[in-house]
Amino acid sequence: MQFQISNWQQLDKTAQQALLERPLQQQSDSLKQAVKQIIRAVRTEGDAALQRFSLEFDKLQSNPLRLSDESQQRLIGSLSDELKTAIQIAYRNIRSFHAAQVPQNIRIETQPGVICELNYSALDQVGLYVPGGSAPLPSTVLMLGVPAQLAGCRRVVLVTPPGQPEAGDIAAEIVYAASLCGITEIYTLGGAQAVAALAYGTETIGKVDKIFGPGNRFVTEAKQQVSQDARGAAIDMPAGPSEVLVIADDTANPVFVAADLLSQAEHGPDSQVVLVSPSEALLVNTISELTRQTALLPRAEIAKKALSNSRLILTPDLATAALVSNQYAPEHLIIQTADDQGLLGKLTNAASIFVGPYTPESAGDYASGTNHVLPTYGYSRNHSSLSLADFYRRYTVQHLTADGMRDLGPTIVKLAKAEGLDAHANAVSFRLAELALHAKISEGNRP
Amino acid sequence: MQFQISNWQQLDKTAQQALLERPLQQQSDSLKQAVKQIIRAVRTEGDAALQRFSLEFDKLQSNPLRLSDESQQRLIGSLSDELKTAIQIAYRNIRSFHAAQVPQNIRIETQPGVICELNYSALDQVGLYVPGGSAPLPSTVLMLGVPAQLAGCRRVVLVTPPGQPEAGDIAAEIVYAASLCGITEIYTLGGAQAVAALAYGTETIGKVDKIFGPGNRFVTEAKQQVSQDARGAAIDMPAGPSEVLVIADDTANPVFVAADLLSQAEHGPDSQVVLVSPSEALLVNTISELTRQTALLPRAEIAKKALSNSRLILTPDLATAALVSNQYAPEHLIIQTADDQGLLGKLTNAASIFVGPYTPESAGDYASGTNHVLPTYGYSRNHSSLSLADFYRRYTVQHLTADGMRDLGPTIVKLAKAEGLDAHANAVSFRLAELALHAKISEGNRP
Repeated sequence: MQFQISNWQQLDKTAQQALLERPLQQQSDSLKQAVKQIIRAVRTEGDAALQRFSLEFDKLQSNPLRLSDESQQRLIGSLSDELKTAIQIAYRNIRSFHAAQVPQNIRIETQPGVICELNYSALDQVGLYVPGGSAPLPSTVLMLGVPAQLAGCRRVVLVTPPGQPEAGDIAAEIVYAASLCGITEIYTLGGAQAVAALAYGTETIGKVDKIFGPGNRFVTEAKQQVSQDARGAAIDMPAGPSEVLVIADDTANPVFVAADLLSQAEHGPDSQVVLVSPSEALLVNTISELTRQTALLPRAEIAKKALSNSRLILTPDLATAALVSNQYAPEHLIIQTADDQGLLGKLTNAASIFVGPYTPESAGDYASGTNHVLPTYGYSRNHSSLSLADFYRRYTVQHLTADGMRDLGPTIVKLAKAEGLDAHANAVSFRLAELALHAKISEGNRP
Repeated sequence: MQFQISNWQQLDKTAQQALLERPLQQQSDSLKQAVKQIIRAVRTEGDAALQRFSLEFDKLQSNPLRLSDESQQRLIGSLSDELKTAIQIAYRNIRSFHAAQVPQNIRIETQPGVICELNYSALDQVGLYVPGGSAPLPSTVLMLGVPAQLAGCRRVVLVTPPGQPEAGDIAAEIVYAASLCGITEIYTLGGAQAVAALAYGTETIGKVDKIFGPGNRFVTEAKQQVSQDARGAAIDMPAGPSEVLVIADDTANPVFVAADLLSQAEHGPDSQVVLVSPSEALLVNTISELTRQTALLPRAEIAKKALSNSRLILTPDLATAALVSNQYAPEHLIIQTADDQGLLGKLTNAASIFVGPYTPESAGDYASGTNHVLPTYGYSRNHSSLSLADFYRRYTVQHLTADGMRDLGPTIVKLAKAEGLDAHANAVSFRLAELALHAKISEGNRP
């Protein structure tokens, strides 16, 4: 493997920008068209289309779609106690971090007789997409299922493509993690067709209000398309390839730094890996470690491809390293420096930050308690990490008493007239007139 | 005007659904293409493109783009004290309701030595789009500007098309409302070109992270397009025509009900107006009032067009009226019934609820304190009313102590191995090995 260290200060603005530019992730028109057709087929043909696509894409014969309770019990029974315990610990930590996020309704009187409320209501029905592929992802089940459970969504549906196509089965880890989150409505279904089924419903699968979870290009495109239709479903956030940026100084252990970069690189060939340091020695030693550790990995080929696009950036100091990170706006940001708390104050635009030598990204990916569903691809500058709030809708309630209307009414009339909206003004002045009439009558009734 | 009362119980499911169906709001391909070209022109030509489009669409000659401080002062000086006071009262109420929403950072130890934080950070730069057109909308300035000010966004930019094209001026009300919110960066610019300038920046206008505010079809489409580009900008919410649903029983005053329906209808010919009631008398009396009040309105023609698509629905009882509302998922929901608090508990899927005889929609549109930027077109079932939260990004921070790593590490390794991600496991086991070595050394050093 060839690595190149870029010296930030020796680059002009354009070259600096180019260095941090992410590769363009344009969905091809043919992919968009294919997804559009899959969605249309599911909307018009329902389950029949799901069966056809499952056979075509997942080689799944005569799919019963819904995973029966018996199958769920059988799969859970097959899991080792050791793995069950590990999933339980992750569940417990994720649950306690998200339970601390339960929102409080707000009720205030903005002026006498004018009461305003901001209320939170759990989304009624949510769909969780859990990718299948080479390995099962019980951690994603927990990251989506725990907040859905805590918010109290009335219906939580999980879809995931089959792990072993012949058996039509889902991985036991996924089913067990789902059971901890109280999820029993599970479908062996993946791809754009699963997203379409969740968004519009079929004979078997009821439609949901919002779809959460990561997926491949087809899933991503399908989520995008259904979210742009009011009759479809909302989605959690825009998607992009996973990425990490590490800031390390010469107190950092290159073994740890290299391992952290590799744990990002092994995700996929399009994973983004960036190391920023004011220490040339740390950069050089990390490169040696990267070569040594990569050789040991079963997924070395994937990691190598990702590393070939990695960025190793030498900065004059840590303050500049922070600026580089803020400009890149990473999904994951790892800080391994002597004064990590001081640096933390300078860092913006990162979705999840890992502080100190004993906080690898893997901790947050699995079990520290934070959510691993995060805005990536630069979206962290204007999108939020997934949290409990995403499983609620916020709405307002207001109530004006007669006195409140008497006091505030004239102001509303003035503003409505200034905007040329006479009916808005009338809705108030008719009420003020009625109140004035009432006042007169009760005055007249006085002895 | 012809009105027709639909009897909910006499309709089958399909007819009920059809009655509540909103008219299809499909952006034409030619509109999409036109907006795409405007965005491309602004990205490549910058200010020159803005000048050209302003001349073409807004008949604005030699536009200086930015409204000078002198012009701002002159405009503010031209405003009557009466109107200034009304805007101040609205500002005060909106501010106190949104100030109650300031989020608290969260920090918890999910297990000993594992510290997780959820932090809020104000969006750095935001752009506020305020529509121009027939009348200035200072209320929209307050609804967007107050939360931006409270959150503490570093840069807040306002764009709005010219009020009087010849003068190139913006309405004094808008400038005054902006000044209360601390906004001085104001551009005389509207349409898709304004959205493009905010999303990508030009020589004069710096790019922003997120764009807020309503607009016409071009603005809506441009917001949609830039939000799908990671290099563009995030947006507040999907758009649709404004709408109101009123639930009233025979205790309601038909004068008020009709006025509320009309204050929605006057917004535009595509406004949606729905009245649901178990009282046939109330429905009939409201129809008479609608005819009487419409005749008095300057915007009667617009209101009549909207009313021609209105829905008047007779239900067997209030519980069914609540079901109709929940199925429709209105932007604005007005309740004028004897037991309004009891009904409130049955209502879901509304973005802003107005309770009682003295709470017209106009109250929330202008001055009660709640935000009038709301999900419409059925989006209220899975999107939130605009609130202070939309002006922040949430991110997480975590820190594991050496002890925290020792305790949690083995769990992470197990989960990573179960998911086939060896580098993720290595990032932990290398740290555990180092800690074990340290422990051995310090043990060896003991006397």
